Amino acid sequence: MRLALTLAVLCGLAAPAAAADLSTQVRAWRAAHEAQVVGQLADFAAIPSVAADPAGLQAQADRLQDELKRRGFDARQLSAGAGAPPVVFGALAIPRARRTVVFYAHYDGQPVTPSQWRSDPFKPVMRQGLSGPDVDWRGAKPPYDPEWRLFGRAASDDKSPIVAFLAAFDALQASGRRPSVNLKVVWEGEEERNSPHLETILKQNQALLAADLWLIGDGPLHQSRTRTIYFGARGNAGLEATLYGPLRALHSGHYGNWAPNPAALAAQLITDLRDPQGRIRIPGFADDVRAVTAAERQAIAGLPPVDEALRRELAFGRAESDEGLTLSTMRPALNVTALRAGDAGRAIPAEAMVSFDFRLVPDETPERVQAKTEAYLAGLGWTVVHTDPDAAVRLASAKLVKLDWTGGYPALRSDMTTPAARAVVAAASRAGGGPVAVLPMMGGSVPIHLFADIFQVPVIGLPIVNHDNNQHAANENARLQNLWDGIETYAGLMADLSW
Amino acid sequence: MRLALTLAVLCGLAAPAAAADLSTQVRAWRAAHEAQVVGQLADFAAIPSVAADPAGLQAQADRLQDELKRRGFDARQLSAGAGAPPVVFGALAIPRARRTVVFYAHYDGQPVTPSQWRSDPFKPVMRQGLSGPDVDWRGAKPPYDPEWRLFGRAASDDKSPIVAFLAAFDALQASGRRPSVNLKVVWEGEEERNSPHLETILKQNQALLAADLWLIGDGPLHQSRTRTIYFGARGNAGLEATLYGPLRALHSGHYGNWAPNPAALAAQLITDLRDPQGRIRIPGFADDVRAVTAAERQAIAGLPPVDEALRRELAFGRAESDEGLTLSTMRPALNVTALRAGDAGRAIPAEAMVSFDFRLVPDETPERVQAKTEAYLAGLGWTVVHTDPDAAVRLASAKLVKLDWTGGYPALRSDMTTPAARAVVAAASRAGGGPVAVLPMMGGSVPIHLFADIFQVPVIGLPIVNHDNNQHAANENARLQNLWDGIETYAGLMADLSW
Repeated sequence: MRLALTLAVLCGLAAPAAAADLSTQVRAWRAAHEAQVVGQLADFAAIPSVAADPAGLQAQADRLQDELKRRGFDARQLSAGAGAPPVVFGALAIPRARRTVVFYAHYDGQPVTPSQWRSDPFKPVMRQGLSGPDVDWRGAKPPYDPEWRLFGRAASDDKSPIVAFLAAFDALQASGRRPSVNLKVVWEGEEERNSPHLETILKQNQALLAADLWLIGDGPLHQSRTRTIYFGARGNAGLEATLYGPLRALHSGHYGNWAPNPAALAAQLITDLRDPQGRIRIPGFADDVRAVTAAERQAIAGLPPVDEALRRELAFGRAESDEGLTLSTMRPALNVTALRAGDAGRAIPAEAMVSFDFRLVPDETPERVQAKTEAYLAGLGWTVVHTDPDAAVRLASAKLVKLDWTGGYPALRSDMTTPAARAVVAAASRAGGGPVAVLPMMGGSVPIHLFADIFQVPVIGLPIVNHDNNQHAANENARLQNLWDGIETYAGLMADLSW
Repeated sequence: MRLALTLAVLCGLAAPAAAADLSTQVRAWRAAHEAQVVGQLADFAAIPSVAADPAGLQAQADRLQDELKRRGFDARQLSAGAGAPPVVFGALAIPRARRTVVFYAHYDGQPVTPSQWRSDPFKPVMRQGLSGPDVDWRGAKPPYDPEWRLFGRAASDDKSPIVAFLAAFDALQASGRRPSVNLKVVWEGEEERNSPHLETILKQNQALLAADLWLIGDGPLHQSRTRTIYFGARGNAGLEATLYGPLRALHSGHYGNWAPNPAALAAQLITDLRDPQGRIRIPGFADDVRAVTAAERQAIAGLPPVDEALRRELAFGRAESDEGLTLSTMRPALNVTALRAGDAGRAIPAEAMVSFDFRLVPDETPERVQAKTEAYLAGLGWTVVHTDPDAAVRLASAKLVKLDWTGGYPALRSDMTTPAARAVVAAASRAGGGPVAVLPMMGGSVPIHLFADIFQVPVIGLPIVNHDNNQHAANENARLQNLWDGIETYAGLMADLSW
């Protein structure tokens, strides 16, 4: 993908000698420690820290707490009570530092469907590129090919930023460089299920978490592979819909035309909710949508052009919208992420399931999205229930749908012009030795509205992983060059940040 | 389900003493051999004779050939060449018999999705009713509860008629009763995949298979549990559609609104093809549909009413059409039998799959259905392909669908007033000691048009299994009372049929 010359950068790129030295020192340390850094990422990715495995989540949390302790941090686990995975917290006061920065990431991964993976999602495998052969990296001698990728659930989302943070810290220590800010980390374990306990934990530990800035190590780089800073993220609201046919599957010959078909009802539900261009059909859905500002449009227009190259790489004929990738993600989205009905036999299924995924923008809330969706469906004649319907409900309903709203949170789009914002962009630019891509809002979701709401300080995204990492899908992977660059970026944000 | 008093019976019910004796004798033999009969059904159901298991198909064919040989039949396997499961053929000439009747059934079962079954589809389990507890029938002393059901793939569809045929023959032998017609059997092994080699085999063995009548032991009884005769069956045409999104699954936040969503395209395809009442939207689709005659309407009107009781049992609020179950199956249907897209992660899937199932009526053909469907979709802007599209095709297509037509055959609706038809209804009525339900056409498909086309003799359906057998779905089952009744029906059709 070609690198564009126009980049939306909000401040100058004058690189003090100290910053150049810093990157050189960090790069040298990394070159000498590639096996150690990749080994740590592979170790972490082998821990099944997913919602379905509470023991795996706890094991990862314990491991992270140990890593912080070993580096001199005051490290602890912040809990919202039994059953919720802890937030791993760490703090390290730096003598004479005026500012305090929280580095946020999450150690939980998306659920897995192992049958769709090329190899076990929790037995990390190195491969040459996205679809190349396996590589015996443990038997290889560094330097590793930076185009190698480590495949495993959560390898990139979101364990890479954690590994980059630890490695950057080690590199600074080894180089005798002192961080320029007091360091805090917040590594949570429920991001992939919409962080249901995070707000409680943040509010219960407000003093402990006090800071001047939050840096969010989640999400991918811009598709141009340019180092990236983002100033917001879409919110979300998950929705699982169940459609009902006959109580038991029926032979499609004997009953086809008479028994209601839940798979066809699923199609009707989808087309009721979104048009062929992906526009949400719910009346009034856009009422809460904050307009994109001229500055935001300008920042987006200044991004390296990637759409056409991406479309070719992804091999599809036409994008859902013609406004361009990044601008299209400034709108709310309604994605269909899964369909399930029937089996190999020829039968009218008893049920069909549709997994939806609303992506929200300021100033929408999951609550209003739910209310608008349900009112609209009721108006179209759907009977909306929230629990498994009994026979009486089923018999009384011509079009019945069970909606399970699986949590969610609002979006955030924050000020790109604060002193902290300018300082972060400058430090990241210096660490990378070039301009960074500045996104007004990332398409994906991170619960960063909480940090902004509760702490009222700037919240800025500092992603490092490759965009083509199969995030949330099978064969998730982390590209080594991104990890290397990420370590330098993190080191810069620890040791070269001031405002 | 209440038994209705009005039944569509085409001839008198006067039961000669001989017929009454016959049923009594057969019933007594059955009562003394329940363990043996059920044991044979369980043995057959344990053989994985499904398309995915050629060895299982061959094992079942060998077993059936042995069963026929042991009973004195000239038994052989008719093959269409390597790779196709054989037709098991048997013939037994009866001294002084004027007529020859072929008994058709199939020994292959539908594919299975074991995870959806309550127990292994090939380890038959007896249960109390449709959803009751397991029963240790091998440890129980007959007589068995006739409401017990044996669960296993193909237990009813279509191994029950084969077991009923063999048991009826044994009962006649034990009672010293001679069949009134020459017996032939044709038991095929590819019915569940649309009988791709049956026509070849029939044509290659036309002299061997000569007969005056074909009796089709496939399909369920009428939902009233009345003994049933049918005079036709819908045809079919299977269709697997694949919809394409990005070449690899993409994070639904980062790409939602831009990357095309194949699951939403699947919904669009379904709603392009059928309306919410299940009516097929393809223009001209009804041109080939033969009108239902007054006699056929009258036969349907005379069937025991079952719709309302069935709707309550199946717990849905409204049927797709308001014309009634049996009349609705006189029309072509377009069923959606499966949907598959995405997984547990939140991503825009790379592909979505829809399994469709056209059910045809006279005088439609699979070829014309395919042509009309594809022309209609092309007119709506779909790019229709039949092989996996390469990047060039994908890039050039805004709406791309791959259609795999998985075979099919036309329907048959035959004359209900021939002498053979009257004789069959009379013999079945006498065997059951009461009126039978007469269906002009069964909703399900059996390739009986072939028998009518090639041999130009009456083809009449003689089903025996319970309608609520989960045919083609998980937890297929055979109700014992149906098996008992079926043995009597088969004995009557062997020994008490004449015209």
